[in-house]
Amino acid sequence: MRAIGHLIWAIPEGYIPRESTGPSPEMLSHETACILNTGEDPADVEIYVFFSNREPAGPYHVQVPARRTRHLRFNDLDDPEPIPRGTDYASLLIANVPIVVQHTRLDSRQAANALISTIAFPS
Amino acid sequence: MRAIGHLIWAIPEGYIPRESTGPSPEMLSHETACILNTGEDPADVEIYVFFSNREPAGPYHVQVPARRTRHLRFNDLDDPEPIPRGTDYASLLIANVPIVVQHTRLDSRQAANALISTIAFPS
Amino acid sequence: MRAIGHLIWAIPEGYIPRESTGPSPEMLSHETACILNTGEDPADVEIYVFFSNREPAGPYHVQVPARRTRHLRFNDLDDPEPIPRGTDYASLLIANVPIVVQHTRLDSRQAANALISTIAFPS
Amino acid sequence: MRAIGHLIWAIPEGYIPRESTGPSPEMLSHETACILNTGEDPADVEIYVFFSNREPAGPYHVQVPARRTRHLRFNDLDDPEPIPRGTDYASLLIANVPIVVQHTRLDSRQAANALISTIAFPS
Repeated sequence: MRAIGHLIWAIPEGYIPRESTGPSPEMLSHETACILNTGEDPADVEIYVFFSNREPAGPYHVQVPARRTRHLRFNDLDDPEPIPRGTDYASLLIANVPIVVQHTRLDSRQAANALISTIAFPS
Repeated sequence: MRAIGHLIWAIPEGYIPRESTGPSPEMLSHETACILNTGEDPADVEIYVFFSNREPAGPYHVQVPARRTRHLRFNDLDDPEPIPRGTDYASLLIANVPIVVQHTRLDSRQAANALISTIAFPS
Repeated sequence: MRAIGHLIWAIPEGYIPRESTGPSPEMLSHETACILNTGEDPADVEIYVFFSNREPAGPYHVQVPARRTRHLRFNDLDDPEPIPRGTDYASLLIANVPIVVQHTRLDSRQAANALISTIAFPS
Repeated sequence: MRAIGHLIWAIPEGYIPRESTGPSPEMLSHETACILNTGEDPADVEIYVFFSNREPAGPYHVQVPARRTRHLRFNDLDDPEPIPRGTDYASLLIANVPIVVQHTRLDSRQAANALISTIAFPS
């Protein structure tokens, strides 16, 4: 199957709440970049994280094998540094082959979970 | 009315929770691909489902008649195989005529339902 | 200010729940097409509603004045016919000048309200 | 890093509820425009707010420094005038350098919070 999508994707919204309710890890508050690589070559993805009051963090390095999806939790990124909790951020993903990116957040700060999702912005 | 949309659509996010609260089928946790075929010819749609650690499943075959919409629950797909619950997946829809695809998830794992929706990525 | 957007917009997802909780009209379950007309001419919008098992309904006629927004509830459409409750539908909006359309649903079937929103698909 | 995005962005949906539950400011009902400026020059952004029954408000002036994100709450805009609560509105953002805009609403009118988010419409 051929590779579908774009090389560059932006997600302006980012916020990992400090608190959660419900069992971990499924109901832990998290931000996710769902990455789809439909092509025949592995995708090497660099992620840069932007803040309101300091220089960007990264690049973080992630690989998505050929014909695979990876639902990457920003909570799990820790090299070169973890994403701070309770802090506004944004992210930019740059791949070497076309991918498709969808952004999702599960927010369990209150008793019922809340979800958001949108296809990221392709450039 | 003329056919509107694209032939190829990608939805990187996919996850059917194992649990639900509330009456079935309306409040059963589900993932839906809402497909709109505004044109004068029936749309034959092939769906491929991607995973993080195995080869893609499919194609699943779905038809949307001329001037009709179909809100397809991934929960209902079972030929050639059902979509596993509690597992990250992504999907790719390939049609023979232009269609428009919107992705929606109802998540009823906790007492209050949560909803997400986004226009899928057209290619 | 110049007119921004497209003439044709599609929203494949549509569903007005039969039940609501909370005070009406604010917490009544509803589907909304938020229409923005940034231009200097009024926008005449025709809306067609598609179903899974019958011919489309409409056109419904809506006007959005110059430099105005209109958050149109599908619940309120009744000419030529109301939108049936508890039924899957999709919609197509066709304007005579460029507009921008965002789709939102408030779902108050359970105790806590749920919200979805996405920019519609421009053609 | 180069500037990514568009100069003009539209968000047809806008509504700041009058009521909230939960601790302020985190759980205060709010509408946010998440703005990402990946480029090497600061972004000067003009915001116009549209209503259903009066002329637009603005421009509001916002700056996003180079390589920064800013998650702007419409609740906080007050020059030239605050955004009225409980009122339908829409917004248009015009920047002097490319930016990316994502729209998010936290709605805490009922006991559990609800979230929506979508990439805004680029023009």
